[in-house]
Amino acid sequence: MDDRAAVVAANDAFYRAFEGLDLAHMEAVWLRAPYITCVHPGWGLLIGWGPVMESWQRIFTNTVSMHFELTDARAEIRGDLAWVLVVENLQSVDVDRKSEGRMQATNLFQRHEGRWCLVHHHASPIYAPVADSGPEHMH
Amino acid sequence: MDDRAAVVAANDAFYRAFEGLDLAHMEAVWLRAPYITCVHPGWGLLIGWGPVMESWQRIFTNTVSMHFELTDARAEIRGDLAWVLVVENLQSVDVDRKSEGRMQATNLFQRHEGRWCLVHHHASPIYAPVADSGPEHMH
Repeated sequence: MDDRAAVVAANDAFYRAFEGLDLAHMEAVWLRAPYITCVHPGWGLLIGWGPVMESWQRIFTNTVSMHFELTDARAEIRGDLAWVLVVENLQSVDVDRKSEGRMQATNLFQRHEGRWCLVHHHASPIYAPVADSGPEHMH
Repeated sequence: MDDRAAVVAANDAFYRAFEGLDLAHMEAVWLRAPYITCVHPGWGLLIGWGPVMESWQRIFTNTVSMHFELTDARAEIRGDLAWVLVVENLQSVDVDRKSEGRMQATNLFQRHEGRWCLVHHHASPIYAPVADSGPEHMH
């Protein structure tokens, strides 16, 4: 398997763990390192293994089902780092409601002992089509 | 200047160009490469030099003044890539209103001919303190 295929496979494994609401699979996707970081949509930065995994546990506990369709995926690889940009088209059911949404994700992977491991995930809701005159929340 | 100082300086130059509403300075910060990408808060992904620079031009045109206080900055470097995570505490004035906000940013830099250049910027609004019971926009 070439580098690109391995990175794409690591990214797919992340979303399978996410859809599977499976903490053990989610733990297996990440690098066990103190500098891992995660930004869920609308959240601030979570830093380190404990806070990142607690966030997944909390999300999984509050979710009945979740389905992603991934589109517009791009991967770039330089040395032992790779970044994947992907749109998460999400349908989820939590304890009191259904929701749908589109998120833009930045996923950063580091090669560690031959395996591509997630070290940073940043996802944010897409409110405005790029072609529009302007977003509601602009820089 | 060591690697870390150089990366921090590149990140600072990005925010100075941003505050300066200065397209030439902004162009100087980015790598001139077809794979550069940018996610403004609430936007989808912009890909490539033209779309990324047009977005800055549009933001600068629509902004009267902008001030950032940067907090909680972290930088990690591996080989020729570095990622900076920082909170953008923003006060801006546009043509018809003042706004304030906190954004979480992921900035990815690539070392090119000895210089750290921005290749990806992803910023998203922080709605919920991490300590809260949950965000409004959850994954």
